[in-house]
Amino acid sequence: MKWLTIPAKAFNKALESQAIERQGQLTKPPGSLGRLETIATQLAGLQGLLKPSLHQVMIRVFAADHGVVEEGISAFPQIVTGEMVKNFASEGAAITVLAAGLKADFGVINLGTVNALPELPKVQDQRISPGTQNFCKQAAMTQVQLESALLSGQAVAIEAIAGAAQLFIGGEMGIGNTTSASTLACALLNQRAELLVGRGTGVDDDGIIRKQTAVTKALELHGLNKPSSDIDVLDCLRCVGGFEIAGLVGAYIACAQAGIVVLVDGFISSVAALVAVRVNPSIRPWLFFSHQSAEAGHVRVLEALDAEPLLSLNMRLGEASGAAMAVPIMQMACRLHAEMATFDSAGVSES
Amino acid sequence: MKWLTIPAKAFNKALESQAIERQGQLTKPPGSLGRLETIATQLAGLQGLLKPSLHQVMIRVFAADHGVVEEGISAFPQIVTGEMVKNFASEGAAITVLAAGLKADFGVINLGTVNALPELPKVQDQRISPGTQNFCKQAAMTQVQLESALLSGQAVAIEAIAGAAQLFIGGEMGIGNTTSASTLACALLNQRAELLVGRGTGVDDDGIIRKQTAVTKALELHGLNKPSSDIDVLDCLRCVGGFEIAGLVGAYIACAQAGIVVLVDGFISSVAALVAVRVNPSIRPWLFFSHQSAEAGHVRVLEALDAEPLLSLNMRLGEASGAAMAVPIMQMACRLHAEMATFDSAGVSES
Repeated sequence: MKWLTIPAKAFNKALESQAIERQGQLTKPPGSLGRLETIATQLAGLQGLLKPSLHQVMIRVFAADHGVVEEGISAFPQIVTGEMVKNFASEGAAITVLAAGLKADFGVINLGTVNALPELPKVQDQRISPGTQNFCKQAAMTQVQLESALLSGQAVAIEAIAGAAQLFIGGEMGIGNTTSASTLACALLNQRAELLVGRGTGVDDDGIIRKQTAVTKALELHGLNKPSSDIDVLDCLRCVGGFEIAGLVGAYIACAQAGIVVLVDGFISSVAALVAVRVNPSIRPWLFFSHQSAEAGHVRVLEALDAEPLLSLNMRLGEASGAAMAVPIMQMACRLHAEMATFDSAGVSES
Repeated sequence: MKWLTIPAKAFNKALESQAIERQGQLTKPPGSLGRLETIATQLAGLQGLLKPSLHQVMIRVFAADHGVVEEGISAFPQIVTGEMVKNFASEGAAITVLAAGLKADFGVINLGTVNALPELPKVQDQRISPGTQNFCKQAAMTQVQLESALLSGQAVAIEAIAGAAQLFIGGEMGIGNTTSASTLACALLNQRAELLVGRGTGVDDDGIIRKQTAVTKALELHGLNKPSSDIDVLDCLRCVGGFEIAGLVGAYIACAQAGIVVLVDGFISSVAALVAVRVNPSIRPWLFFSHQSAEAGHVRVLEALDAEPLLSLNMRLGEASGAAMAVPIMQMACRLHAEMATFDSAGVSES
């Protein structure tokens, strides 16, 4: 597991400075493009290019089931995880519609649906086991299973390199996974369940109480009620995480190591990003945060990451859908930075 | 000027209801696409189609100069208005880069730069006069000039019909026009200058004071310090408005009458929208608001319009640039609504 702490590709300060200088020469009042300017200059530093670009977008959704659904914490039955993987394959899901719109390279990694699935287009079968164990009763996964899931994430980054991806988006599908993410967030932020448990796919009031109870039970069982500095982050991930969350952690870290910019989706993906940054803080500059989810705990996870999301559209679907919505904003920021005229070239007077 | 109060095309409640029903059948937890759902269902009601679409986007930037620059209220010299029109023509400005990215139909209407300009691609020369008069000393325009500017807006809507536009975006370019817009906003919201005057293109502290003084002087000169219900909105526009702002007012009203959805840009455009809605309240459902500008007064203008913008990227450029950034969000909302599978068709279990 040593690969997890290899430093991310270095940020090119000189190129960032050149890009900031260029922004000051473009035909607009200085600063008037707001966040579009900092997106472009940050990307210049990351890609080491005066004119960065994000044409090649790669989206991978990690799917897996969760033993904790036994606790009655989801509004949808567990079978839906596999059904949605089929829906991804037939391009009927939100993320597949969005990926087509973005002309993105889309795929699914099945890390552990409860049922084996037939061969499906766009879906890689890498089932580690038929879902995790119920983490209210035992560790969600074994050490070997954790390492497999993390390596599946790394493999995606290698695919991204091979495909010359300039932007990586990870998504997740797994009935029960907001409960897993909330438990991870409680442990890493040393917070009580009440603060970080939300409605997920739309659980009712009784379901929310069952969810909070499950999170509280799991924190106690696995000894996670302590200052976050005392927590072994990877062991925490093993105990209360999910295969798809671990896949995202591995992918985020490996992409940053490979010099591929990452755009993080909503609550569950942001929790994976928090785990990844705790494991390897050097990756933080490579992560952009796409949207503020309607899921209750997201705002605190973003705060902990010092992250300001680009959008706030009251979305709470997961699947990478929020991240997909933010892609045009980042692409347009690049385009403006690269293609606008300068005061000089256009003969426009300065202030 | 009777045309201004002809009612907007009627909203189709039945189609909106059908679209809401469809949203409930798509393979996602109900409500989980947040604002993307309400965008799609509102558009269904507006376009009278179960599956609305916004492929054909038309962008027109109205340009004009302002006599009030005499008061020292802008960070840029007046010559920049014309220089930027040339920059639009040679596709070096932010909005032209964005319009190309969106494959939008782009054009400029010159309603009154101080200097005559040579013939330029994409630019229609409709100069009413070499800028407005200084509204700190007299009315900005005559009644005939106001009517011309409003009709130029109507003509754009007619162009939009001819081009089968599904979404109209208006932009503005005019050194000094945040001072005009702030004065209009003060009058229509019955507020003091301090609350609604911002830095525009980047005026310094002394400039801000000159701007507030100019606004206060104009409100007094034209008798606009009274409850907004006592204000003759069109006469207020004539006294302290600008040709490009009046052009936007005419375009917004005529587009809504023609059944073309409008996406409003930032502060100045939103003030034009406020004027338009006060003149003809029936147009309000046709207006979408793209972004929260960094310009100080925008938030109050949006409140008065009961408008929740889609983006908040700290932009303050004008030119329609903020609206252009929001187009992919509205288009993706349509695409998701039209192309996602239903629970039934995809064989996915419901909650």
